[in-house]
Amino acid sequence: MKVTVARPTGLCFGVRRAISELENALENVGKIYGLGSPIHNPQEIERLEKLGLVVVKDPADIPPGQPAFIRAHGVSPEVRASLLRRTDRIVDGTCPFVRNVQEKAALLRQEGYRLVIVGDASHPEVQGIMGYAGEGARVVGNASEISPDARNGKIGLVCQTTQKVSLLEKVVRGLLTHTEELRVFNTICGATLERQQAVMDLAPRVDGMIVIGGKNSANTGKLVEISREAGVSTLWIEHYEELDGGWVREKENIGIAAGASTPEWLIRQLISTLESARSPRGMD
Amino acid sequence: MKVTVARPTGLCFGVRRAISELENALENVGKIYGLGSPIHNPQEIERLEKLGLVVVKDPADIPPGQPAFIRAHGVSPEVRASLLRRTDRIVDGTCPFVRNVQEKAALLRQEGYRLVIVGDASHPEVQGIMGYAGEGARVVGNASEISPDARNGKIGLVCQTTQKVSLLEKVVRGLLTHTEELRVFNTICGATLERQQAVMDLAPRVDGMIVIGGKNSANTGKLVEISREAGVSTLWIEHYEELDGGWVREKENIGIAAGASTPEWLIRQLISTLESARSPRGMD
Repeated sequence: MKVTVARPTGLCFGVRRAISELENALENVGKIYGLGSPIHNPQEIERLEKLGLVVVKDPADIPPGQPAFIRAHGVSPEVRASLLRRTDRIVDGTCPFVRNVQEKAALLRQEGYRLVIVGDASHPEVQGIMGYAGEGARVVGNASEISPDARNGKIGLVCQTTQKVSLLEKVVRGLLTHTEELRVFNTICGATLERQQAVMDLAPRVDGMIVIGGKNSANTGKLVEISREAGVSTLWIEHYEELDGGWVREKENIGIAAGASTPEWLIRQLISTLESARSPRGMD
Repeated sequence: MKVTVARPTGLCFGVRRAISELENALENVGKIYGLGSPIHNPQEIERLEKLGLVVVKDPADIPPGQPAFIRAHGVSPEVRASLLRRTDRIVDGTCPFVRNVQEKAALLRQEGYRLVIVGDASHPEVQGIMGYAGEGARVVGNASEISPDARNGKIGLVCQTTQKVSLLEKVVRGLLTHTEELRVFNTICGATLERQQAVMDLAPRVDGMIVIGGKNSANTGKLVEISREAGVSTLWIEHYEELDGGWVREKENIGIAAGASTPEWLIRQLISTLESARSPRGMD
């Protein structure tokens, strides 16, 4: 049996970097208050909590002067100011790509553009960006949401980093005919799309695919869907312990893909387990 | 018989304005050298030549110090400089909408954008704009003309004023996914589209349509096509003398539309002729 991991897969650069900064800081100070969950994976949160992470919902929940952590999604200037009123010990895990969107939004606002943010209004990344976008800014998650009055004048557009290009294209098209000037920063980072493409590329070369990631994770579900559409027998698991020994033994070439919030160590555990299954008594 | 003229139809604001400035100047000075044909209509050129217009192809053909006329299409800064070396008596008929495109191109160039001009590279308006667009600028008349190396970096986009929105949309779409920043000035002026829409709106209300305009005029041909597609019996003439009396007498409601280079007086002649046809002995 051969095991091949899709490349790239799992955590994107920004989340990986944020978690690594958090780990380093925890090693130094022992306890950090994280504003919002840094990663949507219960096993990973459990591990980080053991290292000293305390997840809080509001800056007011942080004891004055205690170290605080900003996750990869970033925060608005207002939230940053609230944090700074509680403590001057901030570990900033904001993804550099998200930071770029915030800076572009601030630049467009400063130069007199009315902001349109292509994205999901309920997503923390978008809520952070909104804080930089100024009055009159609006989030558009669907091309049909563009009202006629939103189309006049000088419009500046940025995107949530994980949005689909197809939505960006639709929104731009909806604005184009009615807008005197449209200045677009395509801030989609491509990590999501690259991970989907990696599954598409790997699927024809394997006779079984294991997708590891939360059952409530939309992006993990999308990877499962892509693999099944490619006609490959596909297992969706959250943890190596859910593996089906019979299914594994039938396969000659197994592919592995991981959701964007699946930490590296869960993938490594899975690979070790599969490798042990190569031995005659493995996985019984 | 009732006669209804499509609204708007015929000359657009910019050409009408340029011809009117030329007429005023001819009245004052008697003779003007026009750089390029100010309007693509032989009857109108003949009329203007009688008033003192001399059409030349090159600034070098203008006798030093003699008055010169810039048509609605505008000219590049280089051509303007050549003109100024010949004479300081320039009547500038550049359409204000075209002037706006030139200014936007110059602004984008100054702010470090690589220019893309959506339009027809052989059109005088586009050749003029190119002069403001700087090195590395390119004209795109077809979305398939976007080469991969044209898509990187910071791109500024303007359009020939008479282009179709659908081409602008296609070019923007082709650039969007690969461009960090795309700043679009939608400089399409809408005059062409409004005139086409006016024929669509009028067609269901008439039982015959007369389209007056040059047989070599693409935009006039388009109006004829739209009218015929609407199922209306349609005559394409260059001059009222080509009217078919039998065709006219059969109609109860006649619509009139004119190409973008058909002067007002040719339309008025046509209307007078149709009105005289109402009398029993008209048009025999």
